[in-house]
Amino acid sequence: MVEQIRKNFSSDNVVPACPAVMSALMAANEGAAPAYGADAWTARLQQVAADVFQHAVQVFPVTTGTAANALALAAITPPYGAVLCDESAHIVQSECGAPDFYTGGARLLTIPSEDGRMDPAALSYVLDRHPASNVQDNLPTTLSLTQATEWGTVYDPARIADLTARARARGLAVHLDGARLANAIVHLGCTPAEATWKAGIDVLALGATKNGAMAAEAVIIFDPARAEQFARRRKRGGHGWSKQRFLSAQLLACLEDDLWLNNARQANAMAHRLAGGLFRHPGARLVYETQANEIFVMLPDRAIAHLRAAGFVFRDWPTPLGVEGTVVRLVTSYYTRVADVDAFLATWRK
Amino acid sequence: MVEQIRKNFSSDNVVPACPAVMSALMAANEGAAPAYGADAWTARLQQVAADVFQHAVQVFPVTTGTAANALALAAITPPYGAVLCDESAHIVQSECGAPDFYTGGARLLTIPSEDGRMDPAALSYVLDRHPASNVQDNLPTTLSLTQATEWGTVYDPARIADLTARARARGLAVHLDGARLANAIVHLGCTPAEATWKAGIDVLALGATKNGAMAAEAVIIFDPARAEQFARRRKRGGHGWSKQRFLSAQLLACLEDDLWLNNARQANAMAHRLAGGLFRHPGARLVYETQANEIFVMLPDRAIAHLRAAGFVFRDWPTPLGVEGTVVRLVTSYYTRVADVDAFLATWRK
Amino acid sequence: MVEQIRKNFSSDNVVPACPAVMSALMAANEGAAPAYGADAWTARLQQVAADVFQHAVQVFPVTTGTAANALALAAITPPYGAVLCDESAHIVQSECGAPDFYTGGARLLTIPSEDGRMDPAALSYVLDRHPASNVQDNLPTTLSLTQATEWGTVYDPARIADLTARARARGLAVHLDGARLANAIVHLGCTPAEATWKAGIDVLALGATKNGAMAAEAVIIFDPARAEQFARRRKRGGHGWSKQRFLSAQLLACLEDDLWLNNARQANAMAHRLAGGLFRHPGARLVYETQANEIFVMLPDRAIAHLRAAGFVFRDWPTPLGVEGTVVRLVTSYYTRVADVDAFLATWRK
Amino acid sequence: MVEQIRKNFSSDNVVPACPAVMSALMAANEGAAPAYGADAWTARLQQVAADVFQHAVQVFPVTTGTAANALALAAITPPYGAVLCDESAHIVQSECGAPDFYTGGARLLTIPSEDGRMDPAALSYVLDRHPASNVQDNLPTTLSLTQATEWGTVYDPARIADLTARARARGLAVHLDGARLANAIVHLGCTPAEATWKAGIDVLALGATKNGAMAAEAVIIFDPARAEQFARRRKRGGHGWSKQRFLSAQLLACLEDDLWLNNARQANAMAHRLAGGLFRHPGARLVYETQANEIFVMLPDRAIAHLRAAGFVFRDWPTPLGVEGTVVRLVTSYYTRVADVDAFLATWRK
Repeated sequence: MVEQIRKNFSSDNVVPACPAVMSALMAANEGAAPAYGADAWTARLQQVAADVFQHAVQVFPVTTGTAANALALAAITPPYGAVLCDESAHIVQSECGAPDFYTGGARLLTIPSEDGRMDPAALSYVLDRHPASNVQDNLPTTLSLTQATEWGTVYDPARIADLTARARARGLAVHLDGARLANAIVHLGCTPAEATWKAGIDVLALGATKNGAMAAEAVIIFDPARAEQFARRRKRGGHGWSKQRFLSAQLLACLEDDLWLNNARQANAMAHRLAGGLFRHPGARLVYETQANEIFVMLPDRAIAHLRAAGFVFRDWPTPLGVEGTVVRLVTSYYTRVADVDAFLATWRK
Repeated sequence: MVEQIRKNFSSDNVVPACPAVMSALMAANEGAAPAYGADAWTARLQQVAADVFQHAVQVFPVTTGTAANALALAAITPPYGAVLCDESAHIVQSECGAPDFYTGGARLLTIPSEDGRMDPAALSYVLDRHPASNVQDNLPTTLSLTQATEWGTVYDPARIADLTARARARGLAVHLDGARLANAIVHLGCTPAEATWKAGIDVLALGATKNGAMAAEAVIIFDPARAEQFARRRKRGGHGWSKQRFLSAQLLACLEDDLWLNNARQANAMAHRLAGGLFRHPGARLVYETQANEIFVMLPDRAIAHLRAAGFVFRDWPTPLGVEGTVVRLVTSYYTRVADVDAFLATWRK
Repeated sequence: MVEQIRKNFSSDNVVPACPAVMSALMAANEGAAPAYGADAWTARLQQVAADVFQHAVQVFPVTTGTAANALALAAITPPYGAVLCDESAHIVQSECGAPDFYTGGARLLTIPSEDGRMDPAALSYVLDRHPASNVQDNLPTTLSLTQATEWGTVYDPARIADLTARARARGLAVHLDGARLANAIVHLGCTPAEATWKAGIDVLALGATKNGAMAAEAVIIFDPARAEQFARRRKRGGHGWSKQRFLSAQLLACLEDDLWLNNARQANAMAHRLAGGLFRHPGARLVYETQANEIFVMLPDRAIAHLRAAGFVFRDWPTPLGVEGTVVRLVTSYYTRVADVDAFLATWRK
Repeated sequence: MVEQIRKNFSSDNVVPACPAVMSALMAANEGAAPAYGADAWTARLQQVAADVFQHAVQVFPVTTGTAANALALAAITPPYGAVLCDESAHIVQSECGAPDFYTGGARLLTIPSEDGRMDPAALSYVLDRHPASNVQDNLPTTLSLTQATEWGTVYDPARIADLTARARARGLAVHLDGARLANAIVHLGCTPAEATWKAGIDVLALGATKNGAMAAEAVIIFDPARAEQFARRRKRGGHGWSKQRFLSAQLLACLEDDLWLNNARQANAMAHRLAGGLFRHPGARLVYETQANEIFVMLPDRAIAHLRAAGFVFRDWPTPLGVEGTVVRLVTSYYTRVADVDAFLATWRK
């Protein structure tokens, strides 16, 4: 039977788990194992993550990115705190208030940006507007960044370091939403350490689900003082798996042998191929530069209809204010192949 | 290679997922599928659950029993409410305050019982002490029952009906923690409907993880008015899986072809064989009657040491006030075999 | 002794309570009275408020405007809800997250405006961006307006009606922050009914503290369904005074004999006199129109220094983005007299 | 006109404010004063409280005892924490879940006692049942004591020291609900320091409302590390008075010239006179010893009816389990006079 074209570009979470992850799950399904994280897989994960990040870490596996972000933020944000973040952030747009809930009602202070990358000057401006001396106001306690951003762009580590230095000067702790961190690392060609703690990140929500896992994310804490009682916060959120080996096994499969980076490399490559092909023909207009595995592009309505009629799946995206026309989002993943991209492009060119 | 004895009786969550569940996961790992519950598995689960419970239902798959309980309680308990429950309840003892967190700070009012089964008269007594007219006090809004109980006993549906009728007369909604509901149903020989909505249950937290799943529980709502905005509560708790097919597939595997009941039947049978064997020799004293798959038993310290030296794993359990001696908990599961039980008993008799 | 000039224009909450309120407190201090709102003053307040607003109401006296707003919002906003409000709103800027806390973590969605008055088109735009169908997002449940606004401007009731109609079409309930409602009513020359429920307001936080009370605000609920269990929410916030007669007596003093409107009339008149005087000389530039009792004005730094050296007290105010120069806020109150304004102006003209 | 008998013994919060407090309020009502606690009264209160307690303190005035308790507990209890307290405590019985709300859902672990005074052995027993190592369980972080207790009894400071030492050994912080602390101090003849920080109290909720204030309580923090960001917690609870001078002035009036102790002395003396008189005739049976200003007594139903028919007001009280007959509570206050007590006794004897 001829292999079919994979036509779903709507998100990197519509795809199956990758074979290595499924094999790891099957392998973990042997015999009894202590519950609630006392298993061998979880112990090994601590070590592997420390090696990958070249830093002592505490790793708390959870199920979803929303849980990872909200729990990480709650660990560093008191209820009277404020979290400064880009207005496009997932924690702002797509988590139904999970950070507000987990922090006990802290406030998100959103900062506009052009392409999802926070401007250091804008951060300083907002910090100045919220001096610690004003007790009628939430206290800025937390900076939350997203890498790669929600607009498919990637921060340079130097810019992250600039942002985190400004935050730290005001006593803020720093969270990184790394749902697509692997895509950013691959784009930058930097090390995981350079992308995180070396740039001033305190707590990382590392995504694996969009990158080939079934359902696995990890809160990775670089400062042990931040990890105190984290297990209790996780438990009380209902995120302590009894059979945690099945979470840790997925994360191990991703981190070992560079699977997470290889999967991201494939996703990025397919995005670049797709973006390149789109712009070789007139009519496509890029909204943001394609650096990771997401493409935001304005296409003629006719072309959109034609592609969908041919079975391709992708989502309309809210147009930035003042932009006329239809923006669509195209997402590639480890699961996307050259043939899939080329089939999309061939349809588009017609 | 000779099959080894399975010596871990510490809990029903230390065992692997059963083969049917793993097969279902592999089968679900084919091609793209819409995210966040718009997949075919989740749609089918709604229908299968409705058939199993002979009632229109809404089913919300989640990862853990704590999440299922806390979300279910939050749907029926305002922040100023009180949840009446047995003092042995999992929501009281083992969830690090998840119900308190998810409800926004509602109060658990615990009611003592002898064996985990709430006394209807005790419920009425507590309700009388908390009249709705006293606005200095939390308003009783919720009754939470556990079936099978945390002490391995099983309510008769008539007693549940008595309790829920008293609750309903005061306007309370009723939650059932069904982490081991299958074990209770098998013990009773009743239908799932008789064990739940026919006995007055409004919202069920149905466990599958302890009964053969990898990690899957379901909030099952019998009254659609209770389900309003439940998806938002779940999302904001970080419990909305993007690749939800993998949750629904596990639950489907359990509910279809009576796997959940067959697994529970095996677990119960092994518990009865084990309890029966223990009491055929002197020295063992039962703390509570063994009706489901948990045994609470006082054993001589020498016997305990001997069993552990032979590799058997089980937990000491807090002794009820006034009881001298060491109580241990022995838990069987779908994974326990006759040979395992007999090996335990043979060691015990020595 | 010659009467001194009252030189503090920094806020309407730095002034003493007005004599009628103090007399009412003294008069209420006679004999025993039932606690927690079962007193005669509170009963009478219900009736007087119903008369003033020409509508059946439930009135819940509390201590602070922050408490009134947060409790009112919590009564109409579930934890997964979103409150749409102007970005200048007191609930956004000056309550240290009280609404986030009391609602259990609902989100404030701020809408920019030019002068504190929300644009109906902007409201619709934001509502369109947050469709109820998107369960990854907070559900818009609440519109919160402020009258008079934080920029000293006053909504026309027709504009409020337009806003509330758009909100209602999407199922939102409407809260009014009426910390300075009396100033708005006096400015408009409308009735309290026209300013509130006739324009679509469901729940009103009515301020008295800034208008002559010692410390008294009232949550006034026009729809009894919204008032259910409000007493419990108030109690659990620690806002149920045991000796509630002293709260109700203050509010009665304000509402009876039109004291609230007369006090506001004096405050507004003094603000207009002050604004008029400022602009008769060059150098002052108005930032927003003076309609109630607050003036936002750009003054030369020299003039500011001179006024302060002469003992006048007022606050610098954050300059709107792109505005050069120093903005100050001048606030008048029932306590401000012609002589005080004229002394300010005389100093300013020098 | 002949002075009337004061017949309301239902609570110490049904009485008016005492003349010294009302005078202080009138005196504070002069001229402008900085808002939100920057006033001279509040500054002076810090000093006076430090003198009274012979310890550096931070004092945060609030309106109600519920607010004082809940805010104090929130400052020392994380959301995953547990507060150990007597089952009769006000925070358990009469605050509609305010501590649960303010702490973000921490759990109250109630400990039974005979007469409202916690047994040190019972505290240790409960602590042992909740080891810090069990992350499935709330972490005991806080001990909350009440002095005088809700049953009108008074702890010996040595017993408080015993309790707090056991708590501290497990890392718990200690809160004291001092709604009637003055009554206890007067009974003991000790100093305020001996009753609080010298016995191991970290945070005190000091009541004044029941002791002659209009509405004023103070959170008094003995350890400055506990006071960090307390102002924000208070603000966000809606408990930051803008005209705070009126709160501080009440507290100053109470603390200066020993008014709080003198008022409590009068209340206690009247309670002892009343209790003594009751027991001089047969038929009255004491439930708890009268040490402060509350009497819990079983009276014949006929006598109760007779007293009420004569106009005396007091409340039935829930009978302890197993006790037959009607228990009533009689509360005296600074406002109770010898003639009032004697009139009650004369009626009772008939």
